[in-house]
Amino acid sequence: MLMSRQPSKKTSGAAEAAGAAEAAEAAGAAEAAEATGAAEAAGAAGAAGTGHPAPTAPTARVAHIGIAVRDLDEALRLYHETLGLPLHGRESVESDGVNVAFLPVGDTELELLEAMDTESPVARFIEKRGEGIHHIALEVDDVAETLKMLRERGYRLIDEEPRIGAGGVRVAFVHPRSTSGVLIELCEKGGDGRP
Amino acid sequence: MLMSRQPSKKTSGAAEAAGAAEAAEAAGAAEAAEATGAAEAAGAAGAAGTGHPAPTAPTARVAHIGIAVRDLDEALRLYHETLGLPLHGRESVESDGVNVAFLPVGDTELELLEAMDTESPVARFIEKRGEGIHHIALEVDDVAETLKMLRERGYRLIDEEPRIGAGGVRVAFVHPRSTSGVLIELCEKGGDGRP
Repeated sequence: MLMSRQPSKKTSGAAEAAGAAEAAEAAGAAEAAEATGAAEAAGAAGAAGTGHPAPTAPTARVAHIGIAVRDLDEALRLYHETLGLPLHGRESVESDGVNVAFLPVGDTELELLEAMDTESPVARFIEKRGEGIHHIALEVDDVAETLKMLRERGYRLIDEEPRIGAGGVRVAFVHPRSTSGVLIELCEKGGDGRP
Repeated sequence: MLMSRQPSKKTSGAAEAAGAAEAAEAAGAAEAAEATGAAEAAGAAGAAGTGHPAPTAPTARVAHIGIAVRDLDEALRLYHETLGLPLHGRESVESDGVNVAFLPVGDTELELLEAMDTESPVARFIEKRGEGIHHIALEVDDVAETLKMLRERGYRLIDEEPRIGAGGVRVAFVHPRSTSGVLIELCEKGGDGRP
């Protein structure tokens, strides 16, 4: 573990977190259908993936790990006060009904997502799946290129085209049914997550 | 996202992955009990955490993200062949019934965990929860110190004392009921995950 330390960069913002919250329902749906659908989807993806060229837009790092929590303050007592992760900010995104806390760790960061009310997508995610890791965001050179490659290989997408997240960064979600049950957000390099 | 790139370090090995597999059942159990138990556990942890001093062994980085998959080859077609993560090795841990693939990304890495048979803890995890993110490993300066602090603050532990993982590195698991549903592995700095 002879790693060098480097300052963390804030790379995703409330809008992305909110996007993740919207996508939570897809994750829940995938889970419900998993017993019958996953093997089939995986098989299709695998067959489509064979013989394709190496990716032109490889993944650089985990931009963040989104965690759905019932109570942000309780979660911060663990991750911030006890485990010592710095707290780089809290935001409330009224339109999506989520409160978010950002905690950098190494070159990635934890994003704690709390529902504002029972109608919030995060609340529905927790109702279906329980608290826990909600999605991971992977930083790629070119989100559009990565989406194109995924589509060509038969992976199921939530966003067919990139959308603009916080700070003007392109983001897109891949459906967890195609990704071993992991809700993956693709984030493009080149911008900061918050202005 | 003005981050600098640095080489990834292999920081966890098959033994840790196997440990995680063992702990999978605890995660499943926590999920089953979550509807009634989580709020209560979170409340207890929060109350215990109030007024304690700042942590002396802060978390440095995410050492790895463990993902339970049905089919390692299918998962590698996505994460390695399509998303472009390098593949730093595969291992089979017969004693724990898991096949593991290691894919570094930034200063962390993905560990894909596939069950060898239906009796494997990873198989039981997938049966209960479906495929998906299984645990995250946080690198800390001193696992024993971190466990002590967690215990004092009322968090529930899977390992009361550190155990020795691959490469002689101390590791321990924290129960997901105390951590917003996230199975957390603590990994100590100072060694490489594999000899």
